[in-house]
Amino acid sequence: MGELTLLRDGNPWGTGTPTDLYIRNGRFVAAGEPDRVIDLAGAQVFPGLIDAHCHLDKTLWGARWVPNTAGPRLADKIDYVRRRGVEFGVPSADRVAALLRHMSSRGTTRVRTHTDVAPHLGLDGCHAVREAAEQVADRITVQQAAFPQFGLLTNPGTLELMDRALRTGLAQVVGGIDPAGVDRDPVRHLDAVFGLATTHAAPVDLHLHDRGTLGAWQLELIIERTRATGMHGRVTVGHAYALGDVEPARQADLVAGLAEAGISIATCAAHSDPLPPLHAMGAAGANLAAGSDGIRDLWSPYGDGDMLTRARQLAYRADCHADDEIEVALRAATFGGAIALGHSGYGLREGDVADLVAVPGATAAESVVTCGERALVMHAGKVVAP
Amino acid sequence: MGELTLLRDGNPWGTGTPTDLYIRNGRFVAAGEPDRVIDLAGAQVFPGLIDAHCHLDKTLWGARWVPNTAGPRLADKIDYVRRRGVEFGVPSADRVAALLRHMSSRGTTRVRTHTDVAPHLGLDGCHAVREAAEQVADRITVQQAAFPQFGLLTNPGTLELMDRALRTGLAQVVGGIDPAGVDRDPVRHLDAVFGLATTHAAPVDLHLHDRGTLGAWQLELIIERTRATGMHGRVTVGHAYALGDVEPARQADLVAGLAEAGISIATCAAHSDPLPPLHAMGAAGANLAAGSDGIRDLWSPYGDGDMLTRARQLAYRADCHADDEIEVALRAATFGGAIALGHSGYGLREGDVADLVAVPGATAAESVVTCGERALVMHAGKVVAP
Repeated sequence: MGELTLLRDGNPWGTGTPTDLYIRNGRFVAAGEPDRVIDLAGAQVFPGLIDAHCHLDKTLWGARWVPNTAGPRLADKIDYVRRRGVEFGVPSADRVAALLRHMSSRGTTRVRTHTDVAPHLGLDGCHAVREAAEQVADRITVQQAAFPQFGLLTNPGTLELMDRALRTGLAQVVGGIDPAGVDRDPVRHLDAVFGLATTHAAPVDLHLHDRGTLGAWQLELIIERTRATGMHGRVTVGHAYALGDVEPARQADLVAGLAEAGISIATCAAHSDPLPPLHAMGAAGANLAAGSDGIRDLWSPYGDGDMLTRARQLAYRADCHADDEIEVALRAATFGGAIALGHSGYGLREGDVADLVAVPGATAAESVVTCGERALVMHAGKVVAP
Repeated sequence: MGELTLLRDGNPWGTGTPTDLYIRNGRFVAAGEPDRVIDLAGAQVFPGLIDAHCHLDKTLWGARWVPNTAGPRLADKIDYVRRRGVEFGVPSADRVAALLRHMSSRGTTRVRTHTDVAPHLGLDGCHAVREAAEQVADRITVQQAAFPQFGLLTNPGTLELMDRALRTGLAQVVGGIDPAGVDRDPVRHLDAVFGLATTHAAPVDLHLHDRGTLGAWQLELIIERTRATGMHGRVTVGHAYALGDVEPARQADLVAGLAEAGISIATCAAHSDPLPPLHAMGAAGANLAAGSDGIRDLWSPYGDGDMLTRARQLAYRADCHADDEIEVALRAATFGGAIALGHSGYGLREGDVADLVAVPGATAAESVVTCGERALVMHAGKVVAP
C-alpha cells in the first residue's frame, strides 16, 4: 500500500465545511493514519481544473513579445500565422511543455487541445504536443484532437493526415471546423468527421463559429448525426456562437436537442463573442465545458493559461452575481470539462482520481472572483504546485 | 528649488526608446544634475491611470466576502443594496480609503467617482468619500459626482441634496441617470442636471444604460443640450450602451455629434454590455474614457480596482489584437480619462504633472496584456508604489 496523505482544513467544494481528504495511490480514500499531512488553511478545494478547448501547438509561450501585425481580414490572419509561424519555429515542443507546466501550476490537471493538421504542416504539431505531453505527464493529462484548421474537404490531404494521427494514437479525438462556413459542404464534412470517429472509435470535437441561422442549422445537423451514429456523450461543439445569438424559442429547442443527444458545448467566453446560455443549459441538463482557446500565439496575444480566471471571465460575461451562479461557471471549468473529455473517476469523492486545486477563499465563489495564488495543486495524488 | 529626480531606463509611452525623465516640484522638467536616481529597468512608462467612472461609496473593499443573494429583478437588487448597505455600514470612509490606496498602488492617480445622493441617504456617501480622499490626497486625486442613483425627479428631495453637495464643494460634478428609462421625463431631467451645472459652473456626467433607439435618442438630446448650454468639453456620458447597439448609420451620426459637441463617453467594458465603437470614435475625434464601475460591492462582487486590467478587458472585448489597437484601449484609461475629467497638464512632457506608472513590458501593448507588477507609481512627483 502506498503512502497515505491527509489534506487537513480544506473546504472541498460542495461540503460547505472543512473536511479532511485522504489520498493513497493517486486516489481519494477513506480516513486512516496518515503518513504525511498537508495543511490547507481553510482554502477551497476543487477537482483539478479542465481546459476543454485550447490550441497548445500554436503557442509562443515563454518567447519575447511579438507585436501582432496581421491585417484585418480572416485571410490576412491565416496568411500571417502561416508566414510568421515558420519564422518563430511554431510548433515547438519546448514552448508547449513550458505552457503545460504553467497551466498545471495554476491548477489545470486535464486538457483537450486542438492541433492543426494540414498538408503544409503534416503532423508536426501533433508530434510536438505529444513530445511535450510526455515531458509533463506526471503533472497534467493531455488529449489531442486532430484539427483541420485550414479546411478538411477544401484542403485535400488533410483527411488522410487526420486518419494517420488517429491510427497511430498521436491524436485521440476527431476535430472539425464550420462544416458550412469554412468547409462549404456540411453533409460531406460531417460524413468525414463522424466516419473517422467510427473507424477509430474516437470522440468528435467540432469548432463551430458560424453564427445565426447558419450556425443553428449546423447544430441541428450535428445533433441528428450524433443520434444516428449512437455517439451519445462523445460529441463536443466548440464555441457554438449561434447558440448564443439565435432567437429564444430556437435556442430552447437546440438546448433540449443537445441535452437529449448528450452533446457538450465548449465555450471560451472570449472577446465579445456570444455566450451559450449557461443557466438554460443547466436547467435542461445540457453539458457546458470551458477552455482557453489560443494562449499567447500568432492569432492572439491574450490568454494566461489559467482556468480559474477563465471561469471568472465566463461568470462575469454571463452576469453571474450570486454565489451559486458563479459556481455554474466554475462547474464548466471542472465537472463540465470532465464530461466533455470523457473522464470518469473525476471529483472529490472516495475512489475518484486525486486531481485537485486548493485556492484561498471563504466560499467557492470568492475563490473564483479573487483567483488567488494556488495553495495546492495535485495531479493523480502527486503535488504539482506550489 | 526642490530635489531633482531622474527616472532612468524607462520607456515613456510613444517614444519607442529608453528616455530619461526628470522630475522636480511635482512636474516633469528638463534634464539636470539629479539628486536621486530611480532605475526603471526598461519598464514602459505611462501617465498615471485614470478611473473615469467608479462608485467608491458603495465598496465593501477589505471586508469579508459577502455572498450576493439579491433577486433577479432590478427592483430586487435595489432593495437588496439598500437593506444590506445598512447591515454592512456602507458607506465607510475607511473602506473607501483602503480601496483608494489599493487603486493608487496599481497606478491610478486620478478618479471620478459617482456617489449616491438620495433623501434616505442624505450626503453620507459624499462625506465618506471626501473624508477618504483627504486621507489619501498625497497618493490619488478624487473628483466626486453627486449621483441620483435612485432617481432625480422621481425621488423628491434628491435635487436639493445634489445642489447642497455642489454648493458646499463636497461634489464637483453633476450626475444624472437615464433621463427616460429611470427618471421618466427626459427633458425635465436634463433641465435639472444642466441647470445645476450652470448654477455651479460644474461639469456633467450622466449614466445612460437605456439601449437601442431609446438610448440613441437620449444621446441626441444630450448632444443638443450640450451645444445649447455651451458646455463643450464638460459633459460625459457613462456606459452609453446604445452607442454600441444602434444600427451603423445612426452610430456614425452619434459619434460625429459627440465629437462635435466635445462629449466624452466613459465605458467600463463590463460583463457582455455593448461597447462603444473604439476605432470609429478615435477616427472621428470623439473622446473615450474608461472606468471600473462598482468594485466589490453589494451590486457586484467583481472589480479589482486596477485600470490596467480594465484597459486589457476593454482591448480584449473589442477584439484588439495589434499593438496599436491595444494602445487605443490604454489611451481610454489615460489621456481619454484626463480629457473627460478636465485635467490639464496631463502627460509625460516637460511641464506636465508627474503622475505616472511604470510597468514591465517590451512594448506598451505587452504591458497591457500582461498587467505585471508596477515598477513605480508616482502622484505629482511623489513615489506612491511600490
